[in-house]
Amino acid sequence: MARKRLVELGDLVAKEGLIAHGRGEAFDYLLGEATCPPALEAIKAAAQTIREAKAPVISVNGNVVALAAEEIADLSKMSDAKVEINLFHRTSERVSGLFEIMKGVGIEALGEEVDDTIPGLSSERAKCCSEGIGSADVVIVPLEDGDRCQALVDMGKTVITIDLNPLSRTSQTAHITIVDELTRCLPLLIDAVRGGVDVDGFNNKENLKEVLGFISDRIKN
Amino acid sequence: MARKRLVELGDLVAKEGLIAHGRGEAFDYLLGEATCPPALEAIKAAAQTIREAKAPVISVNGNVVALAAEEIADLSKMSDAKVEINLFHRTSERVSGLFEIMKGVGIEALGEEVDDTIPGLSSERAKCCSEGIGSADVVIVPLEDGDRCQALVDMGKTVITIDLNPLSRTSQTAHITIVDELTRCLPLLIDAVRGGVDVDGFNNKENLKEVLGFISDRIKN
Repeated sequence: MARKRLVELGDLVAKEGLIAHGRGEAFDYLLGEATCPPALEAIKAAAQTIREAKAPVISVNGNVVALAAEEIADLSKMSDAKVEINLFHRTSERVSGLFEIMKGVGIEALGEEVDDTIPGLSSERAKCCSEGIGSADVVIVPLEDGDRCQALVDMGKTVITIDLNPLSRTSQTAHITIVDELTRCLPLLIDAVRGGVDVDGFNNKENLKEVLGFISDRIKN
Repeated sequence: MARKRLVELGDLVAKEGLIAHGRGEAFDYLLGEATCPPALEAIKAAAQTIREAKAPVISVNGNVVALAAEEIADLSKMSDAKVEINLFHRTSERVSGLFEIMKGVGIEALGEEVDDTIPGLSSERAKCCSEGIGSADVVIVPLEDGDRCQALVDMGKTVITIDLNPLSRTSQTAHITIVDELTRCLPLLIDAVRGGVDVDGFNNKENLKEVLGFISDRIKN
Protein backbone atom coordinates (compact mmCIF):
# COMPACT_ATOMS: atom_id res chain seq x y z
CA MET A 1 0.00 0.00 0.00
CA ALA A 2 2.83 2.43 0.85
CA ARG A 3 4.53 1.64 -2.45
CA LYS A 4 1.31 2.19 -4.38
CA ARG A 5 0.69 5.52 -2.64
CA LEU A 6 4.21 6.76 -3.48
CA VAL A 7 3.83 5.78 -7.13
CA GLU A 8 0.33 7.28 -7.39
CA LEU A 9 1.42 10.70 -6.17
CA GLY A 10 3.41 11.10 -9.39
CA ASP A 11 5.81 14.03 -9.49
CA LEU A 12 5.06 15.07 -5.91
CA VAL A 13 7.45 12.32 -4.86
CA ALA A 14 10.92 12.66 -6.39
CA LYS A 15 12.27 9.63 -8.25
CA GLU A 16 15.24 9.68 -5.89
CA GLY A 17 12.62 9.49 -3.12
CA LEU A 18 11.31 6.23 -4.58
CA ILE A 19 14.81 4.73 -4.54
CA ALA A 20 15.29 5.94 -0.97
CA HIS A 21 11.98 4.32 -0.01
CA GLY A 22 13.26 1.03 -1.41
CA ARG A 23 16.34 1.23 0.80
CA GLY A 24 14.03 1.67 3.75
CA GLU A 25 11.91 -1.32 2.72
CA ALA A 26 14.97 -3.55 2.73
CA PHE A 27 15.92 -2.52 6.27
CA ASP A 28 12.32 -2.99 7.36
CA TYR A 29 12.38 -6.59 6.10
CA LEU A 30 15.51 -7.13 8.18
CA LEU A 31 13.80 -5.62 11.22
CA GLY A 32 10.88 -8.01 10.70
CA GLU A 33 8.52 -5.13 9.90
CA ALA A 34 8.03 -4.48 13.61
CA THR A 35 9.17 -1.80 16.05
CA CYS A 36 12.33 -3.15 17.69
CA PRO A 37 13.08 -2.64 21.42
CA PRO A 38 15.81 0.01 20.89
CA ALA A 39 13.38 1.99 18.70
CA LEU A 40 10.90 2.04 21.60
CA GLU A 41 13.62 3.64 23.75
CA ALA A 42 14.38 6.21 21.04
CA ILE A 43 10.67 7.02 20.77
CA LYS A 44 10.53 7.77 24.50
CA ALA A 45 13.61 10.00 24.29
CA ALA A 46 12.17 11.80 21.25
CA ALA A 47 8.84 12.33 23.00
CA GLN A 48 10.53 13.87 26.02
CA THR A 49 12.59 16.20 23.82
CA ILE A 50 9.48 17.24 21.89
CA ARG A 51 7.55 17.91 25.13
CA GLU A 52 10.36 20.09 26.47
CA ALA A 53 10.83 22.01 23.20
CA LYS A 54 9.90 25.71 23.05
CA ALA A 55 9.55 25.88 19.26
CA PRO A 56 9.40 22.40 17.73
CA VAL A 57 9.06 22.07 13.95
CA ILE A 58 8.30 18.96 11.87
CA SER A 59 10.11 19.15 8.53
CA VAL A 60 8.36 17.12 5.83
CA ASN A 61 9.27 16.11 2.27
CA GLY A 62 7.36 14.32 -0.51
CA ASN A 63 7.84 10.84 0.91
CA VAL A 64 6.70 11.87 4.39
CA VAL A 65 3.55 13.60 3.14
CA ALA A 66 2.75 10.72 0.78
CA LEU A 67 3.07 8.11 3.50
CA ALA A 68 1.96 9.81 6.68
CA ALA A 69 0.15 13.15 6.21
CA GLU A 70 -2.49 12.27 8.82
CA GLU A 71 -0.05 10.99 11.40
CA ILE A 72 2.09 14.12 10.93
CA ALA A 73 -1.02 16.23 11.48
CA ASP A 74 -1.77 14.30 14.68
CA LEU A 75 1.79 14.73 15.96
CA SER A 76 1.68 18.44 15.11
CA LYS A 77 -1.55 18.94 17.05
CA MET A 78 -0.41 16.85 20.03
CA SER A 79 2.94 18.62 20.34
CA ASP A 80 2.13 22.15 19.13
CA ALA A 81 4.80 21.70 16.47
CA LYS A 82 4.61 23.65 13.23
CA VAL A 83 4.94 21.70 9.99
CA GLU A 84 7.32 22.98 7.29
CA ILE A 85 7.60 21.58 3.77
CA ASN A 86 11.28 21.27 3.03
CA LEU A 87 12.34 19.59 -0.20
CA PHE A 88 15.62 18.26 -1.46
CA HIS A 89 14.34 18.53 -5.03
CA ARG A 90 12.37 21.77 -4.60
CA THR A 91 9.96 23.03 -7.25
CA SER A 92 7.02 25.36 -6.64
CA GLU A 93 4.65 22.71 -8.12
CA ARG A 94 5.82 20.10 -5.65
CA VAL A 95 5.61 22.52 -2.68
CA SER A 96 2.05 23.55 -3.66
CA GLY A 97 0.90 19.97 -4.18
CA LEU A 98 2.24 18.86 -0.82
CA PHE A 99 0.81 21.99 0.84
CA GLU A 100 -2.64 21.00 -0.47
CA ILE A 101 -2.35 17.46 0.90
CA MET A 102 -1.40 18.81 4.33
CA LYS A 103 -4.28 21.30 4.13
CA GLY A 104 -6.57 18.33 3.52
CA VAL A 105 -5.60 16.92 6.91
CA GLY A 106 -6.06 20.27 8.67
CA ILE A 107 -2.49 21.57 8.64
CA GLU A 108 -1.48 24.97 7.28
CA ALA A 109 2.13 24.07 6.50
CA LEU A 110 4.97 26.54 6.17
CA GLY A 111 7.36 26.39 3.24
CA GLU A 112 5.52 28.02 0.35
CA GLU A 113 7.12 31.37 1.17
CA VAL A 114 10.74 31.04 2.25
CA ASP A 115 12.67 33.92 3.81
CA ASP A 116 15.56 32.22 5.58
CA THR A 117 18.40 29.83 4.78
CA ILE A 118 20.05 26.81 6.35
CA PRO A 119 23.80 27.59 6.22
CA GLY A 120 26.03 25.07 4.46
CA LEU A 121 23.51 23.88 1.87
CA SER A 122 23.45 24.90 -1.77
CA SER A 123 20.85 27.27 -3.23
CA GLU A 124 17.37 25.70 -3.44
CA ARG A 125 18.14 23.16 -0.75
CA ALA A 126 19.03 25.83 1.80
CA LYS A 127 15.67 27.62 1.71
CA CYS A 128 13.53 27.61 4.86
CA CYS A 129 11.12 29.77 6.87
CA SER A 130 12.27 32.10 9.65
CA GLU A 131 9.11 31.37 11.66
CA GLY A 132 9.61 27.62 11.13
CA ILE A 133 12.97 25.85 10.94
CA GLY A 134 14.80 29.18 11.16
CA SER A 135 13.66 29.80 14.76
CA ALA A 136 13.05 26.21 15.88
CA ASP A 137 14.91 24.71 18.84
CA VAL A 138 13.88 21.12 18.02
CA VAL A 139 13.45 19.84 14.46
CA ILE A 140 11.82 16.50 13.71
CA VAL A 141 13.01 15.44 10.23
CA PRO A 142 11.77 12.01 9.18
CA LEU A 143 13.35 10.39 6.09
CA GLU A 144 15.93 13.15 5.77
CA ASP A 145 19.02 13.46 3.61
CA GLY A 146 22.39 13.36 5.41
CA ASP A 147 23.61 16.81 4.33
CA ARG A 148 20.42 18.48 5.53
CA CYS A 149 20.54 16.64 8.83
CA GLN A 150 24.17 17.67 9.38
CA ALA A 151 23.37 21.30 8.47
CA LEU A 152 20.54 21.41 11.04
CA VAL A 153 22.83 19.98 13.72
CA ASP A 154 25.48 22.58 12.79
CA MET A 155 22.83 25.32 13.26
CA GLY A 156 22.50 24.20 16.88
CA LYS A 157 19.07 22.60 16.48
CA THR A 158 18.23 19.46 18.40
CA VAL A 159 17.49 17.01 15.60
CA ILE A 160 15.19 13.99 15.82
CA THR A 161 14.95 11.69 12.81
CA ILE A 162 13.01 8.60 11.83
CA ASP A 163 15.06 6.44 9.47
CA LEU A 164 15.01 2.70 8.76
CA ASN A 165 18.72 2.54 7.97
CA PRO A 166 20.72 2.62 11.22
CA LEU A 167 23.91 3.17 9.20
CA SER A 168 22.74 6.16 7.14
CA ARG A 169 24.51 9.45 7.61
CA THR A 170 21.23 10.93 8.83
CA SER A 171 20.88 8.24 11.49
CA GLN A 172 24.47 8.70 12.60
CA THR A 173 24.24 12.52 12.66
CA ALA A 174 20.92 13.20 14.41
CA HIS A 175 20.70 13.59 18.18
CA ILE A 176 17.88 11.05 18.42
CA THR A 177 17.32 8.45 15.69
CA ILE A 178 14.22 6.30 15.72
CA VAL A 179 14.98 3.28 13.50
CA ASP A 180 11.45 2.35 12.54
CA GLU A 181 8.95 2.59 9.71
CA LEU A 182 7.32 6.01 9.63
CA THR A 183 3.63 5.11 9.81
CA ARG A 184 4.25 2.41 12.43
CA CYS A 185 6.32 4.71 14.61
CA LEU A 186 4.33 7.95 14.54
CA PRO A 187 1.30 6.66 16.53
CA LEU A 188 3.72 5.34 19.16
CA LEU A 189 5.53 8.69 19.25
CA ILE A 190 2.22 10.57 19.57
CA ASP A 191 1.20 8.27 22.47
CA ALA A 192 4.55 8.85 24.13
CA VAL A 193 4.24 12.64 23.79
CA ARG A 194 0.77 12.38 25.34
CA GLY A 195 1.83 9.94 28.03
CA GLY A 196 4.74 11.96 29.36
CA VAL A 197 7.14 9.20 30.47
CA ASP A 198 10.67 10.52 31.09
CA VAL A 199 13.84 8.82 29.91
CA ASP A 200 16.92 8.60 32.05
CA GLY A 201 19.92 9.14 29.79
CA PHE A 202 19.65 8.36 26.10
CA ASN A 203 22.74 7.63 24.01
CA ASN A 204 22.04 7.64 20.27
CA LYS A 205 25.27 5.86 19.27
CA GLU A 206 24.58 3.07 21.77
CA ASN A 207 20.98 2.83 20.63
CA LEU A 208 22.04 2.46 16.99
CA LYS A 209 24.48 -0.28 18.01
CA GLU A 210 21.63 -2.11 19.70
CA VAL A 211 19.57 -1.86 16.52
CA LEU A 212 22.45 -3.29 14.48
CA GLY A 213 22.81 -6.13 16.99
CA PHE A 214 19.08 -6.79 16.74
CA ILE A 215 19.24 -6.96 12.92
CA SER A 216 22.37 -9.11 12.93
CA ASP A 217 20.78 -11.62 15.33
CA ARG A 218 17.60 -11.78 13.26
CA ILE A 219 19.56 -12.53 10.08
CA LYS A 220 21.62 -15.21 11.82
CA ASN A 221 18.59 -16.90 13.39
CA MET B 1 25.86 6.92 -11.17
CA ALA B 2 23.51 3.91 -11.30
CA ARG B 3 20.81 5.93 -9.54
CA LYS B 4 21.24 8.82 -11.96
CA ARG B 5 21.02 6.49 -14.96
CA LEU B 6 17.79 4.91 -13.68
CA VAL B 7 16.20 8.31 -13.08
CA GLU B 8 17.35 9.69 -16.45
CA LEU B 9 15.76 6.88 -18.44
CA GLY B 10 12.36 8.24 -17.43
CA ASP B 11 9.41 5.98 -18.17
CA LEU B 12 11.60 3.15 -19.53
CA VAL B 13 12.21 2.23 -15.91
CA ALA B 14 9.03 1.55 -13.95
CA LYS B 15 8.57 3.51 -10.72
CA GLU B 16 8.27 0.17 -8.93
CA GLY B 17 11.66 -0.60 -10.49
CA LEU B 18 13.15 2.44 -8.77
CA ILE B 19 11.85 1.23 -5.40
CA ALA B 20 13.22 -2.25 -6.10
CA HIS B 21 16.59 -0.72 -6.96
CA GLY B 22 16.59 1.01 -3.58
CA ARG B 23 16.06 -2.32 -1.82
CA GLY B 24 19.07 -3.63 -3.70
CA GLU B 25 21.17 -0.62 -2.69
CA ALA B 26 20.48 -1.30 0.97
CA PHE B 27 21.62 -4.91 0.70
CA ASP B 28 24.70 -3.79 -1.23
CA TYR B 29 25.65 -1.46 1.62
CA LEU B 30 25.37 -4.41 3.98
CA LEU B 31 27.56 -6.51 1.66
CA GLY B 32 30.18 -3.73 1.69
CA GLU B 33 29.61 -3.03 -2.02
CA ALA B 34 31.91 -5.93 -2.92
CA THR B 35 31.41 -9.43 -4.32
CA CYS B 36 31.25 -11.74 -1.31
CA PRO B 37 32.91 -15.21 -1.31
CA PRO B 38 29.63 -17.19 -1.62
CA ALA B 39 28.70 -15.05 -4.66
CA LEU B 40 31.97 -16.08 -6.32
CA GLU B 41 30.91 -19.72 -5.88
CA ALA B 42 27.47 -19.00 -7.32
CA ILE B 43 29.09 -17.24 -10.29
CA LYS B 44 31.15 -20.37 -11.04
CA ALA B 45 28.08 -22.60 -10.82
CA ALA B 46 26.11 -20.23 -13.05
CA ALA B 47 28.92 -20.12 -15.62
CA GLN B 48 29.05 -23.91 -15.79
CA THR B 49 25.27 -24.11 -16.25
CA ILE B 50 25.38 -21.47 -18.99
CA ARG B 51 28.23 -23.27 -20.79
CA GLU B 52 26.32 -26.56 -20.73
CA ALA B 53 23.02 -25.00 -21.84
CA LYS B 54 21.63 -25.86 -25.27
CA ALA B 55 19.35 -22.82 -25.57
CA PRO B 56 20.21 -20.19 -22.93
CA VAL B 57 18.20 -16.96 -22.81
CA ILE B 58 18.90 -13.78 -20.87
CA SER B 59 15.63 -12.15 -19.80
CA VAL B 60 15.99 -8.38 -19.28
CA ASN B 61 13.73 -5.68 -17.86
CA GLY B 62 14.00 -1.88 -17.62
CA ASN B 63 16.35 -1.88 -14.64
CA VAL B 64 18.70 -4.43 -16.24
CA VAL B 65 18.91 -2.55 -19.55
CA ALA B 66 19.35 0.80 -17.77
CA LEU B 67 22.17 -0.46 -15.60
CA ALA B 68 23.98 -3.05 -17.69
CA ALA B 69 23.09 -3.07 -21.40
CA GLU B 70 26.75 -3.45 -22.45
CA GLU B 71 27.57 -6.19 -19.96
CA ILE B 72 24.42 -8.09 -21.01
CA ALA B 73 25.56 -7.77 -24.63
CA ASP B 74 28.99 -9.14 -23.67
CA LEU B 75 27.45 -12.07 -21.79
CA SER B 76 25.13 -12.79 -24.71
CA LYS B 77 28.03 -12.90 -27.17
CA MET B 78 30.28 -14.96 -24.90
CA SER B 79 27.59 -17.54 -24.14
CA ASP B 80 25.54 -17.57 -27.36
CA ALA B 81 22.50 -16.67 -25.29
CA LYS B 82 19.60 -14.80 -26.84
CA VAL B 83 18.33 -11.68 -25.06
CA GLU B 84 14.59 -11.28 -24.49
CA ILE B 85 12.90 -8.14 -23.16
CA ASN B 86 10.42 -9.27 -20.57
CA LEU B 87 8.59 -6.64 -18.54
CA PHE B 88 6.52 -6.77 -15.40
CA HIS B 89 4.89 -3.46 -16.35
CA ARG B 90 4.70 -4.08 -20.11
CA THR B 91 3.83 -1.31 -22.57
CA SER B 92 4.82 -1.21 -26.24
CA GLU B 93 6.62 2.13 -25.67
CA ARG B 94 8.78 0.62 -22.97
CA VAL B 95 9.57 -2.49 -25.01
CA SER B 96 10.55 -0.37 -28.05
CA GLY B 97 12.70 2.00 -26.00
CA LEU B 98 14.57 -0.86 -24.35
CA PHE B 99 14.88 -2.64 -27.72
CA GLU B 100 16.62 0.48 -29.11
CA ILE B 101 19.07 0.62 -26.21
CA MET B 102 19.99 -3.03 -26.73
CA LYS B 103 20.35 -2.40 -30.47
CA GLY B 104 22.80 0.37 -29.61
CA VAL B 105 25.07 -2.21 -27.97
CA GLY B 106 24.76 -4.63 -30.89
CA ILE B 107 21.97 -6.89 -29.64
CA GLU B 108 18.81 -7.65 -31.60
CA ALA B 109 16.63 -8.49 -28.62
CA LEU B 110 13.49 -10.61 -28.71
CA GLY B 111 10.32 -9.46 -27.02
CA GLU B 112 8.77 -6.93 -29.38
CA GLU B 113 6.65 -9.66 -30.98
CA VAL B 114 5.35 -12.16 -28.47
CA ASP B 115 3.74 -15.46 -29.49
CA ASP B 116 4.00 -17.61 -26.39
CA THR B 117 3.01 -17.48 -22.73
CA ILE B 118 4.53 -18.35 -19.38
CA PRO B 119 1.83 -20.41 -17.61
CA GLY B 120 0.68 -19.20 -14.21
CA LEU B 121 1.14 -15.47 -14.83
CA SER B 122 -1.63 -12.99 -15.57
CA SER B 123 -2.19 -11.47 -19.03
CA GLU B 124 0.52 -8.97 -20.02
CA ARG B 125 3.03 -10.47 -17.62
CA ALA B 126 2.78 -13.90 -19.18
CA LYS B 127 3.81 -12.87 -22.69
CA CYS B 128 7.04 -14.26 -24.10
CA CYS B 129 8.67 -15.45 -27.35
CA SER B 130 8.58 -19.08 -28.45
CA GLU B 131 12.07 -18.79 -29.93
CA GLY B 132 13.32 -17.17 -26.73
CA ILE B 133 12.09 -18.01 -23.22
CA GLY B 134 9.48 -20.41 -24.65
CA SER B 135 12.11 -22.86 -25.91
CA ALA B 136 14.98 -22.04 -23.54
CA ASP B 137 16.48 -24.69 -21.27
CA VAL B 138 18.38 -22.16 -19.12
CA VAL B 139 17.02 -18.68 -18.34
CA ILE B 140 19.20 -15.99 -16.76
CA VAL B 141 16.83 -13.48 -15.14
CA PRO B 142 18.62 -10.72 -13.25
CA LEU B 143 16.57 -8.48 -10.91
CA GLU B 144 13.45 -10.58 -11.41
CA ASP B 145 10.10 -10.56 -9.65
CA GLY B 146 9.28 -13.58 -7.49
CA ASP B 147 6.15 -14.68 -9.36
CA ARG B 148 7.96 -14.69 -12.70
CA CYS B 149 10.89 -16.60 -11.27
CA GLN B 150 8.55 -19.21 -9.78
CA ALA B 151 6.65 -19.52 -13.07
CA LEU B 152 9.88 -20.16 -15.01
CA VAL B 153 10.93 -22.83 -12.50
CA ASP B 154 7.47 -24.42 -12.81
CA MET B 155 7.96 -24.52 -16.61
CA GLY B 156 10.98 -26.75 -16.04
CA LYS B 157 13.58 -24.11 -16.95
CA THR B 158 16.87 -23.98 -15.09
CA VAL B 159 16.77 -20.48 -13.61
CA ILE B 160 19.79 -18.34 -12.73
CA THR B 161 19.18 -15.00 -11.05
CA ILE B 162 21.28 -12.08 -9.86
CA ASP B 163 19.66 -10.43 -6.84
CA LEU B 164 21.12 -8.42 -3.97
CA ASN B 165 18.50 -9.60 -1.48
CA PRO B 166 19.30 -13.15 -0.34
CA LEU B 167 15.87 -13.37 1.29
CA SER B 168 13.78 -12.35 -1.72
CA ARG B 169 11.36 -14.86 -3.17
CA THR B 170 13.33 -14.74 -6.42
CA SER B 171 16.57 -15.60 -4.60
CA GLN B 172 14.90 -18.41 -2.71
CA THR B 173 13.16 -19.82 -5.80
CA ALA B 174 15.91 -19.78 -8.47
CA HIS B 175 18.21 -22.76 -8.98
CA ILE B 176 21.30 -20.57 -8.81
CA THR B 177 21.21 -17.16 -7.10
CA ILE B 178 24.16 -14.81 -7.39
CA VAL B 179 23.82 -12.31 -4.54
CA ASP B 180 25.78 -9.45 -6.02
CA GLU B 181 25.38 -6.09 -7.73
CA LEU B 182 24.57 -6.55 -11.42
CA THR B 183 27.34 -4.51 -13.07
CA ARG B 184 29.97 -5.83 -10.64
CA CYS B 185 28.93 -9.43 -11.13
CA LEU B 186 28.46 -9.63 -14.91
CA PRO B 187 32.15 -9.15 -15.87
CA LEU B 188 33.04 -11.90 -13.37
CA LEU B 189 30.34 -14.15 -14.81
CA ILE B 190 31.57 -13.50 -18.37
CA ASP B 191 35.15 -14.34 -17.29
CA ALA B 192 33.92 -17.53 -15.65
CA VAL B 193 32.00 -18.57 -18.78
CA ARG B 194 35.16 -17.94 -20.80
CA GLY B 195 37.46 -19.61 -18.26
CA GLY B 196 35.57 -22.88 -18.04
CA VAL B 197 36.22 -23.87 -14.40
CA ASP B 198 33.86 -26.60 -13.22
CA VAL B 199 32.10 -26.63 -9.86
CA ASP B 200 31.72 -29.72 -7.76
CA GLY B 201 28.25 -29.67 -6.24
CA PHE B 202 26.47 -26.37 -5.75
CA ASN B 203 23.68 -26.01 -3.19
CA ASN B 204 21.71 -22.77 -3.55
CA LYS B 205 20.08 -22.90 -0.11
CA GLU B 206 23.48 -23.42 1.55
CA ASN B 207 25.00 -20.66 -0.54
CA LEU B 208 22.26 -18.22 0.51
CA LYS B 209 22.84 -19.15 4.16
CA GLU B 210 26.52 -18.34 3.72
CA VAL B 211 25.59 -14.95 2.29
CA LEU B 212 23.31 -14.26 5.28
CA GLY B 213 26.10 -15.27 7.64
CA PHE B 214 28.49 -12.96 5.80
CA ILE B 215 26.06 -10.02 6.12
CA SER B 216 25.29 -10.76 9.75
CA ASP B 217 28.99 -10.85 10.65
CA ARG B 218 29.65 -7.59 8.79
CA ILE B 219 26.85 -5.82 10.68
CA LYS B 220 28.07 -7.13 14.02
CA ASN B 221 31.71 -6.19 13.37
